[in-house]
Amino acid sequence: MKQLLDTETPSREELERILDTTEAMLEISQRDIKKVPTLRGRTVINMFLEPSTRTRVSFEIAAKRLSADAINVTASGSSLSKAETLSDMARNLSAMQADVLVVRDRNAGVPAMLARHLSIPVINAGDGNHEHPTQALLDAFTIRQAFGNIEGRVVSIIGDVAHSRVARSNIHALTKLGAEVRIAGPPTMIPVGVEQFGVKPCTSIDEALDGAHVVMMLRIQMERLEGALFPSVREYASTWGLSRERLRLARPDAVVLHPGPVNRGVEIQSEVADAEPSRILDQVTNGVATRMAVLYLLTGDSQ
Amino acid sequence: MKQLLDTETPSREELERILDTTEAMLEISQRDIKKVPTLRGRTVINMFLEPSTRTRVSFEIAAKRLSADAINVTASGSSLSKAETLSDMARNLSAMQADVLVVRDRNAGVPAMLARHLSIPVINAGDGNHEHPTQALLDAFTIRQAFGNIEGRVVSIIGDVAHSRVARSNIHALTKLGAEVRIAGPPTMIPVGVEQFGVKPCTSIDEALDGAHVVMMLRIQMERLEGALFPSVREYASTWGLSRERLRLARPDAVVLHPGPVNRGVEIQSEVADAEPSRILDQVTNGVATRMAVLYLLTGDSQ
Amino acid sequence: MKQLLDTETPSREELERILDTTEAMLEISQRDIKKVPTLRGRTVINMFLEPSTRTRVSFEIAAKRLSADAINVTASGSSLSKAETLSDMARNLSAMQADVLVVRDRNAGVPAMLARHLSIPVINAGDGNHEHPTQALLDAFTIRQAFGNIEGRVVSIIGDVAHSRVARSNIHALTKLGAEVRIAGPPTMIPVGVEQFGVKPCTSIDEALDGAHVVMMLRIQMERLEGALFPSVREYASTWGLSRERLRLARPDAVVLHPGPVNRGVEIQSEVADAEPSRILDQVTNGVATRMAVLYLLTGDSQ
Repeated sequence: MKQLLDTETPSREELERILDTTEAMLEISQRDIKKVPTLRGRTVINMFLEPSTRTRVSFEIAAKRLSADAINVTASGSSLSKAETLSDMARNLSAMQADVLVVRDRNAGVPAMLARHLSIPVINAGDGNHEHPTQALLDAFTIRQAFGNIEGRVVSIIGDVAHSRVARSNIHALTKLGAEVRIAGPPTMIPVGVEQFGVKPCTSIDEALDGAHVVMMLRIQMERLEGALFPSVREYASTWGLSRERLRLARPDAVVLHPGPVNRGVEIQSEVADAEPSRILDQVTNGVATRMAVLYLLTGDSQ
Repeated sequence: MKQLLDTETPSREELERILDTTEAMLEISQRDIKKVPTLRGRTVINMFLEPSTRTRVSFEIAAKRLSADAINVTASGSSLSKAETLSDMARNLSAMQADVLVVRDRNAGVPAMLARHLSIPVINAGDGNHEHPTQALLDAFTIRQAFGNIEGRVVSIIGDVAHSRVARSNIHALTKLGAEVRIAGPPTMIPVGVEQFGVKPCTSIDEALDGAHVVMMLRIQMERLEGALFPSVREYASTWGLSRERLRLARPDAVVLHPGPVNRGVEIQSEVADAEPSRILDQVTNGVATRMAVLYLLTGDSQ
Repeated sequence: MKQLLDTETPSREELERILDTTEAMLEISQRDIKKVPTLRGRTVINMFLEPSTRTRVSFEIAAKRLSADAINVTASGSSLSKAETLSDMARNLSAMQADVLVVRDRNAGVPAMLARHLSIPVINAGDGNHEHPTQALLDAFTIRQAFGNIEGRVVSIIGDVAHSRVARSNIHALTKLGAEVRIAGPPTMIPVGVEQFGVKPCTSIDEALDGAHVVMMLRIQMERLEGALFPSVREYASTWGLSRERLRLARPDAVVLHPGPVNRGVEIQSEVADAEPSRILDQVTNGVATRMAVLYLLTGDSQ
């Protein structure tokens, strides 16, 4: 692997190799001294052109636990404005002998565009509505952690699938890894022709939950979408939100995932988000290990 | 100690233990190679939601001199907006196996609220008008450095005591450490019933200075307060400002402190701020050592 | 050397010592593990009060490759506003036992002002229209790399010389190092009396290019200057821009430099910027090595 731009391109074996490496990295994160010299002398550029705290911090911690030098670049305080300047900027960072470029951008395709201009690996940390591959990998890892494997597990992704890079990356990753993926949400939030991706659309949350191993709730972009794609937050919560009662439709050993940040009382009730069988904080913990694995495989592997 | 949310809660022994540890840390800061491996592999999150340079840099340098990984989180470029999201964010950072959370916020009580949600130590780096405990500790350390001890020293805190988290933390710390604390300022800036904290209110700066070992001038929030709490800057400077002449009322070996940044010519004349017996830059130097001590005691001590 | 505020002050020997040290630093940057313990325990403050990404990242990478602790300070999120506060801030950072202060500011003279207040070395990372000495040093290094020496090389600096701190620093450095420096640009962009600096003004780009070893194109501040100093971008590009055709006027072994970011199609055509004999990305690579050299010579040398 030379890039991680999406989960659509890598083979099942490549995805599994990342998950296996994540296992080893998680062990490092749980040591008393959570640091190994693996990427000492490597330079990781975290270029977050869309505001972000969680994902940026997760990548920064991952780089530092591997002893890499992590350099943050944000849109504010920079001279970036146009796409052309952006690729020049990336070429410059690469010319400073950076070893890997982590990029988040509001616009789909920016990481792939930069990858075409650069000789160093590029990791997509979220690009518009396109993909967010490390999120899907940490989700897959969390599922494997809960059940021992992914093959045959029923994963229901519920919410605004059409506008979610998290959903898109998960659909590619989880179907490839052998899960049975269902999707559910208001019709305005389900992509037309989604069956072609090997997932099963459901017309109600109850249908999606029935017998599911994994319930993955998506974040609703409330500010942006209320009125446009659904009538009201209250209506959304009652029709598509996850309550403790509804969760009983899933398997008794089902787990709940959410990419965060959670809209409590909207797509998920607090009582579900904060207690068993929620794996939301495990996802965050696993996120650091997943990013350590990806940084290691893309930059440290060849030595 | 599991937290440093204020100076009101810790016992005298706990405060003295921090001061003693600061002594050792100061020695490290004066070596040619100002770095020890004590907190290697530890992750320190500096979450400064109120703009700050000095205190953030002081904590960041402190963490790095102990070989910890320091991660900065600011309000700009983050998705933080509401208190609820804030505690979710903190829980996320904690789930990334951070070892300590340093927090500054405009709102009093935010560090305590986060501490209730987290299993990792929280350090208050200033919360609204409430407390700024590391500032009081560095002030206490600077006094001990100047006089050998704190017990029985007369410390006059002059200015806007009512709206100052620095004053509040110092009152708790210094009275507990045995100092005789006086306060003085315009009546609008002195909290009602302040005597109950064991301090002596003075009605003029001259009364406060008379025989004082330590003159601690507070910063006036000029932009916010002119007209509201005092008639004019000129009036304030002449009634409550510290000039070289006025300083003669204090003991011959008195020292001058100020938490910075200084409003020159307002609460203090430049000639006083920049020369003997000002300890303002010593306070800054001691601030790094104090924060090293607190980080060490809260995160490194148990190993 | 105790400061690097400009290239006007240092002697030829001092400049050459930096270039020689850069050679060694470049070698480190090309190792598999690009890190040496030289400045371990040293604290480098990068105080970029004017928005910047490239130069800040270059200094940050340089510091980290030498194992120094790098602390970033920007204008946003800080309490800085007035020049007086600025020098207080710098004195504070110095009191935290920082070892060197790197400063960029919109205003000419700020680094020199701070240097007068501080006992630690100050490096000017660009101040208004005044100087940008590390840029000139990396340019000189790139020229030496291309030709083996600088003495006698013909360097043509083309564009808005009057408003360019890059041009000013290069004129001082390159004339001192023995180059023959020509300048060319619209009359509104050429300083009156520029001959006194030992450079030769040319009245056309063709005259400047004729027989040149080095063609250094300057960035046009389009937003700021269109209409004020030149009639139109199109007009500027055709009269003063560098095309492949025009470049043939220079020597067959000529190289092209640009400080970046490039305005493609304005001062330089993409086909010239992106291919031989452009050295633009080498400049970026050499920039890190140059900054490592300067940091080392100013802070590590005495040990």
